[in-house]
Amino acid sequence: MSTAAAPQSRPAATTHEVVNQPPPLAGHDVADDPVLLEGVAREGAAWHLEELHRLGRTVGGEEAQRWADQANRYEPELRTHDRYGHRIDEVDFHPAYHQLMDLSVGAGLAGAAWADGRPGAHVARAAGFMVVSTLEAGHLCPVSMTYAVVPALRRSPELAAVYEPLLTSRTYDPGLRVPAGKRGLLAGMGMTEKQGGSDVRANTTTAERAADGSWRLRGHKWFTSAPMNDLFLVLAQAPGGLSCFLVPRVLPDGSRNTFRVQRLKEKLGNRSNASSEPEFDDTVAWLVGDEGRGVRTIIDMVTMTRLDCVLGSASGIRAGLAQAVHHARYRSVFGAKLIDQPLMRNVLADLALESEAATTLALRLAGAADRAVRGDAGERAFLRLATAVGKYWVCKRQPVAVAEALECLGGNGYDEASGMPRLYREAPLNGIWEGSGNVNALDLLRALAREPEALEAFAAEVGAAAGADRRLDAAWAELRGELRPAEDAELRARRIAERAALVLQGALLVRYAPGAVADAFCASRLAGDRGLAFGTLPPSADLAGLLTRLPV
Amino acid sequence: MSTAAAPQSRPAATTHEVVNQPPPLAGHDVADDPVLLEGVAREGAAWHLEELHRLGRTVGGEEAQRWADQANRYEPELRTHDRYGHRIDEVDFHPAYHQLMDLSVGAGLAGAAWADGRPGAHVARAAGFMVVSTLEAGHLCPVSMTYAVVPALRRSPELAAVYEPLLTSRTYDPGLRVPAGKRGLLAGMGMTEKQGGSDVRANTTTAERAADGSWRLRGHKWFTSAPMNDLFLVLAQAPGGLSCFLVPRVLPDGSRNTFRVQRLKEKLGNRSNASSEPEFDDTVAWLVGDEGRGVRTIIDMVTMTRLDCVLGSASGIRAGLAQAVHHARYRSVFGAKLIDQPLMRNVLADLALESEAATTLALRLAGAADRAVRGDAGERAFLRLATAVGKYWVCKRQPVAVAEALECLGGNGYDEASGMPRLYREAPLNGIWEGSGNVNALDLLRALAREPEALEAFAAEVGAAAGADRRLDAAWAELRGELRPAEDAELRARRIAERAALVLQGALLVRYAPGAVADAFCASRLAGDRGLAFGTLPPSADLAGLLTRLPV
Repeated sequence: MSTAAAPQSRPAATTHEVVNQPPPLAGHDVADDPVLLEGVAREGAAWHLEELHRLGRTVGGEEAQRWADQANRYEPELRTHDRYGHRIDEVDFHPAYHQLMDLSVGAGLAGAAWADGRPGAHVARAAGFMVVSTLEAGHLCPVSMTYAVVPALRRSPELAAVYEPLLTSRTYDPGLRVPAGKRGLLAGMGMTEKQGGSDVRANTTTAERAADGSWRLRGHKWFTSAPMNDLFLVLAQAPGGLSCFLVPRVLPDGSRNTFRVQRLKEKLGNRSNASSEPEFDDTVAWLVGDEGRGVRTIIDMVTMTRLDCVLGSASGIRAGLAQAVHHARYRSVFGAKLIDQPLMRNVLADLALESEAATTLALRLAGAADRAVRGDAGERAFLRLATAVGKYWVCKRQPVAVAEALECLGGNGYDEASGMPRLYREAPLNGIWEGSGNVNALDLLRALAREPEALEAFAAEVGAAAGADRRLDAAWAELRGELRPAEDAELRARRIAERAALVLQGALLVRYAPGAVADAFCASRLAGDRGLAFGTLPPSADLAGLLTRLPV
Repeated sequence: MSTAAAPQSRPAATTHEVVNQPPPLAGHDVADDPVLLEGVAREGAAWHLEELHRLGRTVGGEEAQRWADQANRYEPELRTHDRYGHRIDEVDFHPAYHQLMDLSVGAGLAGAAWADGRPGAHVARAAGFMVVSTLEAGHLCPVSMTYAVVPALRRSPELAAVYEPLLTSRTYDPGLRVPAGKRGLLAGMGMTEKQGGSDVRANTTTAERAADGSWRLRGHKWFTSAPMNDLFLVLAQAPGGLSCFLVPRVLPDGSRNTFRVQRLKEKLGNRSNASSEPEFDDTVAWLVGDEGRGVRTIIDMVTMTRLDCVLGSASGIRAGLAQAVHHARYRSVFGAKLIDQPLMRNVLADLALESEAATTLALRLAGAADRAVRGDAGERAFLRLATAVGKYWVCKRQPVAVAEALECLGGNGYDEASGMPRLYREAPLNGIWEGSGNVNALDLLRALAREPEALEAFAAEVGAAAGADRRLDAAWAELRGELRPAEDAELRARRIAERAALVLQGALLVRYAPGAVADAFCASRLAGDRGLAFGTLPPSADLAGLLTRLPV
């Protein structure tokens, strides 16, 4: 797709001419997007815009698009043994995957923001993550985990002292070697087991302390992505309870740690990313945080990867929208461009509205994370509730919005060559890993019950928009009643989480987005003047105004 | 999955025991489903139930599940040339594909219902189609097209006389041979071209009359599925305008007709089905119906395939529900079976409700088709509007519902081995082929504008439920206002189509479904007491009652 010459230069088919097909969407600046740029500046990373545009041009280019295609077509392969029969547990990747990793680590999307003292550094990183997410999501899994491991690792300062400088590097240095001798490290995570899934208390992997103060693990994990990463945070049962451990692939003396990769998952999407099932047997590990407090430790990592799920889903929606709009601008049907036809305009405008709401919320969360990292307690409290809400809702909307965008291309959208199937296959993943929709909706209830300051911070955020739109005020008043403790709260957890997300998105759009966007959002999402499907904005919506807020 | 022994008989892993994983869902009767059985009996095919159960047991069996897996894993391959360099344009299929075809043609799901005089024959066929759809959707494309071609072909009685007896055969007789000498035929369809898509008036393929009264085609098609079928209805520009032609792969003298398959599409899903791009050059064809009336002729075929899209989508939703419920019954998390946890119950019950509404509407359409074929003008008029409405809505809901069902399995649902990815990849297709969502929503407007008897029949159907539920009455009263001609009707076409579908589904459920189902539907879908996502039924909903209406 991306390497093709312009259609008009191609030799004619023998029986017909090929006309009314759009050119491939390539050669543009992915960051040239009003919603993204305004949000990045608003959340405190205006200083990053020039670098973001540079990244956007790389990501929009034909070469990067080819990497993305190839990294998913030529999937990683597990090598359990070498040619001589030694167990090696390595994964081979296509060169295009390494190019993508080099791009993202080089752009500071792994751990670099933790070494960047500038206010807004985590917003800048989030923006870059969103731009690259529109290109290829699979390779961002190890990138995201490396970003997320840093706050968890800091619970053991002696480990952080050794590894943090390498986790925050902008150098991609692949290959299984002694971590301390590498120019940059990548980290992963192993939480879930076959019998437990989200219920990590059911873990059966055991940890025993060795004479030298390190630990030995025995057991398995069911989903451990990116097994070629250097270090993993792993949950296991120590005598004092479930604990978090650091597991290196290569030990300090250069020998391989036991990390037997049984197989790679055959996943629906995210195919560039190797997701594995490792077994541990006398595997060397170091305790991170306190014994028996494993969940407390690793949740610092999970909080950050949940944020990345929101960023990724917002980007996935935006990538689908970009393709749909591009197609509609070029394709004529029944005598007019698709983008000029009323019903298609309603669909595209509705998708653009959903996308703006998702992107605005995602960047608001990134801003909160940035300020929380720098000690802002109010933002930390806001994040506690808003991450659960955002992870629930933005990730929940991704498959729905992307399916709709795919349909905008008609049969062409069902063809892998269009790129839409990759977006669609990717779409459910952010809603599943790092906790499914139900896990996040119930986590919202937990935050409401246990952390009153989280609700206060959320209320303050929504309150900042009070009086601007009566539909928002009414929705918030109604939601407040729903947030009170109640016996049937679990049953209603998705209703509450959805409503909280819509109210929060509405509050942000009322304050920051153009009138056309805020009004259409309040009418359709808060006052209910819409259907269940996209393309059902009310006739009062300013479609033309909404269609200026596009990523292409 | 389907061939595995029971988990307890497997050798233990070296580092852990595998527990709390469900057994594969296999060995059951797929037709043992209250919603399906009640609908089939209600729509006039109670006489078919025994055969349907037999088919359901075959489809639920391990062998058939293996066929479905293999037919999608080992995809059809195009052979453009033979070993000596002759052009052959043939497609090779895995034996499992032929097994599936043999099963479905043998069950009478291709053209057989047209040769069956019993009232309810098309309902019986629809029920079988739904049962097999839960197993494997790709091979049903040629099956569906063969079913659908018959009414169109009847517009040329001399062609119908030759081919209809073979199109209605229950014998699957694959291979490119002289059609008249085979024991059963399969038919396909070629409408869309690169430049036109749904806009078939933009077709550039030309047709010229030959001296013997046959025609010669030159041009191409962009999506022509199942190119190994024997006969195709193809649209081309004749001197008198766009016309419908019958194109055989093999000519009566045994020579190959020109049907140059450029390539097979690399599709998101539906991978067992070969979808091709043929080119025509001096290709022999016969006119079907009147010259210049090609759309009028082929629309008879499209109407029937649209019905199959609704059947297929309803089945896809039901297949996803079955897997989600099965998983939830066996999987314990945080100390309780998933199916006993309030939020998961809300998700499953909401999916079950959506599924019952979809299945009930699909079977109602099949009943209308059956009676319309036998001369019932009211049912024909009802079908005109209800097919557009059903195709729009049931197909629109399939990707959303299946994504939700997939998420119920957590990370396991994202693994191809679970079968959920195949359901998910399949999900957007019915909403695209045979006319996208917008095409069908606009077709509804066309029917409203041109065929007042269609609205009358629709109103009579909804009116039969009047007074039973005030929420339904209110929704219908409001919808009637929306159905009036208006300048902004195109902009509102999806709102109207969605609302019409919900009112129709509500009317059917109020009359035929248990109180728990009808009440929850009216509360959530008509009175709006729900969120946009699944799992948001109101606390008043009788979840236990809804969870008795399951396909497993």
